[in-house]
Amino acid sequence: MNAIAIKAGRSSPEVIDVDVPDPDDGEALVRTLRVGIDGTDFEVLEGNHGGFPDGEDYQILGHEAVGVVDDPNGTDLEEGQLVVPTVRRPPDGSNDYFERGEPDMAPPDACLERGIDGAHGFMSEYFTSPAEYLIPVPTAFAETGVLVEPMSNTAKALEHAFASRSMFDWEPDTVLVLGNGPLGLLTLAMLDSTVDRSYCLGRRDRPDPTIDVIEELDATYVDSRETPVSEFAGVHEPADLVFEATGYAKHAYETVDALAPNGVGVLLGLPGDWTFDIDGGRLHRELVLENKALLGSVNSHVRHFESATESLERLPDWFLERIITDTYAPSEVDDAFTDDDDRIKTVVEFDTL
Amino acid sequence: MNAIAIKAGRSSPEVIDVDVPDPDDGEALVRTLRVGIDGTDFEVLEGNHGGFPDGEDYQILGHEAVGVVDDPNGTDLEEGQLVVPTVRRPPDGSNDYFERGEPDMAPPDACLERGIDGAHGFMSEYFTSPAEYLIPVPTAFAETGVLVEPMSNTAKALEHAFASRSMFDWEPDTVLVLGNGPLGLLTLAMLDSTVDRSYCLGRRDRPDPTIDVIEELDATYVDSRETPVSEFAGVHEPADLVFEATGYAKHAYETVDALAPNGVGVLLGLPGDWTFDIDGGRLHRELVLENKALLGSVNSHVRHFESATESLERLPDWFLERIITDTYAPSEVDDAFTDDDDRIKTVVEFDTL
Repeated sequence: MNAIAIKAGRSSPEVIDVDVPDPDDGEALVRTLRVGIDGTDFEVLEGNHGGFPDGEDYQILGHEAVGVVDDPNGTDLEEGQLVVPTVRRPPDGSNDYFERGEPDMAPPDACLERGIDGAHGFMSEYFTSPAEYLIPVPTAFAETGVLVEPMSNTAKALEHAFASRSMFDWEPDTVLVLGNGPLGLLTLAMLDSTVDRSYCLGRRDRPDPTIDVIEELDATYVDSRETPVSEFAGVHEPADLVFEATGYAKHAYETVDALAPNGVGVLLGLPGDWTFDIDGGRLHRELVLENKALLGSVNSHVRHFESATESLERLPDWFLERIITDTYAPSEVDDAFTDDDDRIKTVVEFDTL
Repeated sequence: MNAIAIKAGRSSPEVIDVDVPDPDDGEALVRTLRVGIDGTDFEVLEGNHGGFPDGEDYQILGHEAVGVVDDPNGTDLEEGQLVVPTVRRPPDGSNDYFERGEPDMAPPDACLERGIDGAHGFMSEYFTSPAEYLIPVPTAFAETGVLVEPMSNTAKALEHAFASRSMFDWEPDTVLVLGNGPLGLLTLAMLDSTVDRSYCLGRRDRPDPTIDVIEELDATYVDSRETPVSEFAGVHEPADLVFEATGYAKHAYETVDALAPNGVGVLLGLPGDWTFDIDGGRLHRELVLENKALLGSVNSHVRHFESATESLERLPDWFLERIITDTYAPSEVDDAFTDDDDRIKTVVEFDTL
């Protein structure tokens, strides 16, 4: 079967031919429909993230997938069921995090990540997975199901954010999303009914398809070249919730200034190393005097995929049509892995229902 | 009556003579037994914190008090009941934070703080307070009740910390308390039965009374001159919970390095302005990849005073006797406000039961 993989020593993905995998006990065989591409895939290509599966000289890419159960292989799944796989797998047998159903809380050395770190991904005509990591989704998700995985990361981060504010009366009126990539736009749409006013920060000139989506969602586009995060509260208003999805290193600290009293900043982006000056005494003091919080959040698990599935069902059709901008066949791998500002979410389509 | 106050333009407290206050409707009159002194009092003296009550040229100090109801004045309190007052009061009439019973979540401009900011404190032979802000405590607290207010700040911070980790299985094994002042030592003692291993950071040479208390609690003393916070995890072990009680500005950021995966750092100290370099990209990334959290926390309210009261009842006698090291009469105000390393908690005693 065809698979899209990165080979050792290369930095561009290519189509390779591998055997259709054989499901082990407890695993199902899934026929892949679509796999989304995101920033982490580009980091894998650049060698900044993860590593190849043990003993392999290539890694199949892809962690945002939707597919159809082809062979339930004795599991509780049914043939023809549409499913979305979770990403993390235990490194050897299992460990406490997986046994508790909380692989999203495993530190990096206690998990593999399919398509990212130490395990093959889903960019192949078929893949196998333990049934417990395959989340049933409605048939209507055949095209959009690739969005469940990114949305599950937001679902988990928001769950932790609300929990951190659960000992007092906290109903966020305003959200500031840092980043107008697919994750930022999905988060903005997911929060649409929760908050009164939304802002989304980017660094793009008009006309731009992401700014159009932001404004169609009745959110305010904030150009970071005009209004840096540290000045956001003064120019607009302090935000009860800040959602960092760019991986720009300074945002973690500037978020303290953007937050309203009792607000929470959730951090999902992954910056590289960078040493810089901060107004550290004042920021530390503001965290304390205004009961502010910063929460890092990575990955997600079954209940977050389920909650993302419910959220995806509620998103308007126009939004979904505008988010998935580019669809390629596996043979168009070079085009699929070209990034430009006209794209929001690119998917590789292996098959249709 | 005698009161200890700071006058406009001065930086040392003095004994002044003021009228015994007259309780308003809903207020009780309290005969003060003891009032504790902490770092915030010294900041008030230095003019770094708060401000005088409107229209006054002096402020009565003190926010850690215990007293006896002298005149219930028609409230539900009983004459002779031992009480501890909370600190925050609404600036004009009331506001949402006070109406919701959450004055600890009020931003600085939405509250006054007795003895600190815009309201007279409790360092006087008598004080008045709305009955709702007077927490009944057992008669056995006549000497130690001054510890309820500092302990309530820890109770609130820990409540928020545990809430922030409530969406997954989190049972902290290890705590690192930054600071061996009274708040640090009280926190260490409060957490004694919750965690397996405790560490307390200071910068003192032996022999030292705080190091003795730390070791008597079976905690490990960490000398920050030998092991800075950023190196703590490597030298000892990563901490599930870090409790910052020094106000040293860099601690907020170094805490990220000291935390175990999924850990939480709570910040209570109040640093001054200070700009410095941080390894900001790496720290931001570690917050994300290891699901770490930083929570600022200030003040506390009724349920935290109640929970602190329960905690104080459980603290061993030897500990309480070693924490309150110095007791002065109001006339010894100069000695009371002298700080040295042999002291842990100093109290001013106005009366006894």
